[in-house]
Amino acid sequence: MARSADSAPTDGAMRSIHRMLNPASIAVVGATPRLQYGGRFLKAALRSPDGVRVYPVNPRYDEVMGVRCYPRLADLPESPDLVGIVVPYDRVMDVLDECAKCGAGSAIVISAGFAERGIDERGDLQKRMGEFALTSGVRVCGPNCLGVANLRTGIWATASSLAADGKSGPIGLVSQSGASAFGPFLARALEKGVGYSYIVSTGNEADLGSADFIRYLVDDPHTKVIACFIEGFKDGARLMEAARAARQRGKPIVMIKVGRSELGSRAAGSHTAALSGEDTVHDAAFRQLGIIRVDDYDDLIEVSQLMAYSTAPMAPGVSVVSHSGGISSLTADNCGQVGLSLPPLSDETVQGLNEVLKGFGWAANPADVTGHANSDNFPRILDLMSSDPEMGTVVVASAGSDNQAQQIVDLRDRMNKPIAFLWTGSQSATDGLDLLKSSNIPVFYQPGTAARGVKALIDYHRRRDIHVAAGPPSSGEPSAEQRQEAERLSSLGKHTLSEHETKDLLALWGVPVTREKRADTLEEACAAAAEVGYPVALKVESPDILHKTDAGLVALGLGGVADLRQAYDTLLADARTQHPGSRVSGVLVQEMVSGGTEVIVGVSRDPHFGPVLLLGMGGVLVELYRDVALRVCPITREDAREMIAEVRGARVLEGYRGIPTGDVEALTDALMNVSTMAVHLRDSIRELDVNPLTVLPAGRGVKALDALAVLGP
Amino acid sequence: MARSADSAPTDGAMRSIHRMLNPASIAVVGATPRLQYGGRFLKAALRSPDGVRVYPVNPRYDEVMGVRCYPRLADLPESPDLVGIVVPYDRVMDVLDECAKCGAGSAIVISAGFAERGIDERGDLQKRMGEFALTSGVRVCGPNCLGVANLRTGIWATASSLAADGKSGPIGLVSQSGASAFGPFLARALEKGVGYSYIVSTGNEADLGSADFIRYLVDDPHTKVIACFIEGFKDGARLMEAARAARQRGKPIVMIKVGRSELGSRAAGSHTAALSGEDTVHDAAFRQLGIIRVDDYDDLIEVSQLMAYSTAPMAPGVSVVSHSGGISSLTADNCGQVGLSLPPLSDETVQGLNEVLKGFGWAANPADVTGHANSDNFPRILDLMSSDPEMGTVVVASAGSDNQAQQIVDLRDRMNKPIAFLWTGSQSATDGLDLLKSSNIPVFYQPGTAARGVKALIDYHRRRDIHVAAGPPSSGEPSAEQRQEAERLSSLGKHTLSEHETKDLLALWGVPVTREKRADTLEEACAAAAEVGYPVALKVESPDILHKTDAGLVALGLGGVADLRQAYDTLLADARTQHPGSRVSGVLVQEMVSGGTEVIVGVSRDPHFGPVLLLGMGGVLVELYRDVALRVCPITREDAREMIAEVRGARVLEGYRGIPTGDVEALTDALMNVSTMAVHLRDSIRELDVNPLTVLPAGRGVKALDALAVLGP
Repeated sequence: MARSADSAPTDGAMRSIHRMLNPASIAVVGATPRLQYGGRFLKAALRSPDGVRVYPVNPRYDEVMGVRCYPRLADLPESPDLVGIVVPYDRVMDVLDECAKCGAGSAIVISAGFAERGIDERGDLQKRMGEFALTSGVRVCGPNCLGVANLRTGIWATASSLAADGKSGPIGLVSQSGASAFGPFLARALEKGVGYSYIVSTGNEADLGSADFIRYLVDDPHTKVIACFIEGFKDGARLMEAARAARQRGKPIVMIKVGRSELGSRAAGSHTAALSGEDTVHDAAFRQLGIIRVDDYDDLIEVSQLMAYSTAPMAPGVSVVSHSGGISSLTADNCGQVGLSLPPLSDETVQGLNEVLKGFGWAANPADVTGHANSDNFPRILDLMSSDPEMGTVVVASAGSDNQAQQIVDLRDRMNKPIAFLWTGSQSATDGLDLLKSSNIPVFYQPGTAARGVKALIDYHRRRDIHVAAGPPSSGEPSAEQRQEAERLSSLGKHTLSEHETKDLLALWGVPVTREKRADTLEEACAAAAEVGYPVALKVESPDILHKTDAGLVALGLGGVADLRQAYDTLLADARTQHPGSRVSGVLVQEMVSGGTEVIVGVSRDPHFGPVLLLGMGGVLVELYRDVALRVCPITREDAREMIAEVRGARVLEGYRGIPTGDVEALTDALMNVSTMAVHLRDSIRELDVNPLTVLPAGRGVKALDALAVLGP
Repeated sequence: MARSADSAPTDGAMRSIHRMLNPASIAVVGATPRLQYGGRFLKAALRSPDGVRVYPVNPRYDEVMGVRCYPRLADLPESPDLVGIVVPYDRVMDVLDECAKCGAGSAIVISAGFAERGIDERGDLQKRMGEFALTSGVRVCGPNCLGVANLRTGIWATASSLAADGKSGPIGLVSQSGASAFGPFLARALEKGVGYSYIVSTGNEADLGSADFIRYLVDDPHTKVIACFIEGFKDGARLMEAARAARQRGKPIVMIKVGRSELGSRAAGSHTAALSGEDTVHDAAFRQLGIIRVDDYDDLIEVSQLMAYSTAPMAPGVSVVSHSGGISSLTADNCGQVGLSLPPLSDETVQGLNEVLKGFGWAANPADVTGHANSDNFPRILDLMSSDPEMGTVVVASAGSDNQAQQIVDLRDRMNKPIAFLWTGSQSATDGLDLLKSSNIPVFYQPGTAARGVKALIDYHRRRDIHVAAGPPSSGEPSAEQRQEAERLSSLGKHTLSEHETKDLLALWGVPVTREKRADTLEEACAAAAEVGYPVALKVESPDILHKTDAGLVALGLGGVADLRQAYDTLLADARTQHPGSRVSGVLVQEMVSGGTEVIVGVSRDPHFGPVLLLGMGGVLVELYRDVALRVCPITREDAREMIAEVRGARVLEGYRGIPTGDVEALTDALMNVSTMAVHLRDSIRELDVNPLTVLPAGRGVKALDALAVLGP
């Protein structure tokens, strides 16, 4: 067995997955001669190579498909590495119990009828299954899945009838949907000549989840890229850990994640019950972890293949060459749309191309080398278009003849640069295309997919280098004072902090706030103003009125005592008449801050990923534009920089139409500090809004002007 | 010949195109036995059906490919309907001259070496070709094209070696790129089972342009959908006329237009020299005309096929059914992302589905009918999912067996609703897929493409109904006063109007402006303020200072005479010291307008499309978000409404976070009036900025607060 060649993992889940994917013995409980789920599972398992022992288990048969059938698992001559379970939902727990008793290594539950039914009782049953798996050590894939396949060794433990005819490759596929994994993802990969190392369908994930299988593939020596189809994660932390390990190892994760729209979430909810999270948070986590998110079948397969067979590009520039002006312009246009750069050719390259083209075509980037670029001179053209050090990646768009395909293979072999081939002929063509496929040249069939793929390749490696160098994020240890405050807050239960209290908290974690003082009387307010320094702002403090500005309980720019007195009387009277019954706990006298750009910094708590940091622009229109960046806490300094770069409106901080350059370093510090605070107070803070945080001109820092925290377990 | 069956068009260009696409006789000048361009053209022409006479013309041969060869066009026994020209670039004009002399009906110039070379002299040569075509009446397709094909009659007048094996269909293809038309667009359509009526490659468009061929296809009885690959239009007005006629007739235009990014424009510039326009204006014109813009090869073909074989959906709702939860959720997610609506199923439908599914799957929209939905009950499921009147379109996602494909064909035949089939199996599968193709069921291969296609189908018909009912836009006749003003302005030459002059102009075309008066002295200013009513704004008038606010030459909210006097002195002193040398032509005393939402309304002049209207949000961040809507003038009232709906920030006009609902009707009026003004003054106005136009709360109208017009021919 191949297992002996691999380094067996030590962790319980990893060990079970290893036995599941590399079994020396497979039992199929519920095997039947009919080609329904149980029969198909047995038939697939029986295709296993010599040395893999397969045991049908079914009290109703003595023999199935020519193989001796056992009444119960207890009757088997050995403890099976893997048990496939294909029995009605209400018998699954009994079979799992038998698995534990007979010392089985792992189980795949094909049976459906659990949480996906949307009935409480079935959800509970699934929960019990997960608990049993953990306590018994018989780790479970499924229920409601189609099983797994090890394409490298030819072991198919699946109720699918599809096969791969011996084709395998370096892409590990993890899919919650079995019908997708063993349907379009297998069928399309085969016709594209793309090979998988493993196919894993995880179904409802009562026990082992997609993140566990991803984590396994990170350590698997036969897998270079992990391709995933995910409807919802059950454990965000586990995913983040797996994805961080993948990035560290340089194994790209390419993923379709359902839930971009509400409709997808609704549908996913019906299938993989209750696993879905908020999509924007998933998107943020994916960016943070370098997970490449794609939307369609072909994208997943073609982009994975490009990632698997490409070295890291040495430069961000892309050169595009085609025999047609129209094809090269459409390809370049798609490259431009995704933000790729096509540097102009050097004079030398232009001259070289013109010598070949002899007045036809167009010696530029993109190049249109016309039909006059024949087999004899195409290698010279390829060399010219790829040798410039500014060109990190080469895109060739063509319906190349056999000869052209060979020339591309030769180019790949003599040049250490990624190549993407955009095939413009029929997708079912064989000439040339077959050679490209069998030589593992990454082939695309649409200009848009090719452009997105090359962009993902360049971005992945560029960002990986930065993030791996920066190391993992850490929130550090809280100081004694911070720890004390954290304990105090966690004892408060559900509670809303006032602006002043929230700012004290921010200050304790190093976020600059306005100079301000609370006051209970007019006299105290006057004294506070003298200390803070005029002009001041005056705000009513009340735990019952959350949005003071909207409620009209704020006076700005009070220039002296007279203004202050008048504002004090007016605000308190307004609070009493307009918000009767609200408790008023005095006023806040605050310095006025002028100039600067207002941003929002916030923290929310995601059920799957924990505290999530938000950065957005201030102002009323921002909600319409949804111009925000999110990250799961803790963040690194590079994450903070990327957040600022992602917020479109934040470009005003670079100096824009007369607005002075903002103190981006101080904003970066503030994001880091709020992230740290969110982690230290993760058990207390449900919501935090610093709105606005003013970013002052460069060198002058940032200042929280208003803030509000909602606590609770 | 098929020609007799068609109604022959009367217009010169249309008549020539008709002869070009339905020739009874074809001459090939430059025909050779070698299979280069000339030989390939002859070979393709010789495949024509009986009755089409083909004449090789080349003084060097007596016979080519077994056919008698003529030394010159003058020697032919008849005037050919079509002459294919495949000679070196410097001989093309001579051949065209011979065409005119022998009474040829039309010409296709395959030869390259014209404007696409980027050399002035070659551009001039191409220009002469266009002029000769117009004066001689021998209308020209090309140069630098690959020719045309009539797939219905089997006439291929092209230098391409590809063919369609008799496959034809209702999609007319117009492509500036010959290598794309006779490359990916033909190859992919064939493998998808999608048929063309004609393939036209227009090349450099010295004479006949894409818009001419589109216009021809609008009247062609064999074409239901017009698919286009365009790098740049040479005549925006012609395109708009053709597209309007297409919408009137209910023939959708589906188009890839290169130039979404700067890279595409750069590349397109190199190929179809100088035809490219500003992409945002193209995009605006496409929306205005209902042209469906797509980005990739498969999208063009698959969306065209859907449009060709679908009736108008009777409701915007979409139902999605699949045998897999994962596939249905991904499909629904893609539908949601493009803005489609999947209405919930009625209780009755849910009950009906549950009777079929017997506890498996998920009776919802999207439906997951699992593998338990077998051939026997699939028709019942299809009926249930499609019979609800809220479901206007049905999407079936499956790798259906032969039987399932037949059931889909049956459903289509008994139900008058559009169906889109998302094929999830191998694209080179034959079972079932072949039947779907041959039955003209629109098939998609990716969830994203399917979703975009269905969205385009629903939007096209919905918007078509509205726009056809509204009739074409008209700017009407100017009044006597407006005409007089237009004449005066056109006599001014290059000139910038002051704020006050521009507002007078706006007022003359019915756009409300602030109450204001010019004043030359302080006394006049005081009198003006008394008349306008305090508080007032005071602005320095100078033809040399365009951005008065940025220049600090504006004082706002002057409450009385004292404020006015002080502001007057300060502003004029500032103007003198800070802008020495600038002419100051007095001051403007203006009412203060408070409340309302500030928008920008502007007009620019596009070289291809003429005056273009812009609507955007006011404020400094708007340029960062590029949140604007454009339309080519004149516009209809519905166009104006759509512009307002397209600007994201304009949703504040619907009432948003305490901002009162804006006077959208008055804004619509203002857009209509500015559009009318832009058309009446199209020879004078180069640029107009109404910035800001304040949209007051509902019922209170709009008001131009500031405005600036730049005139010039």
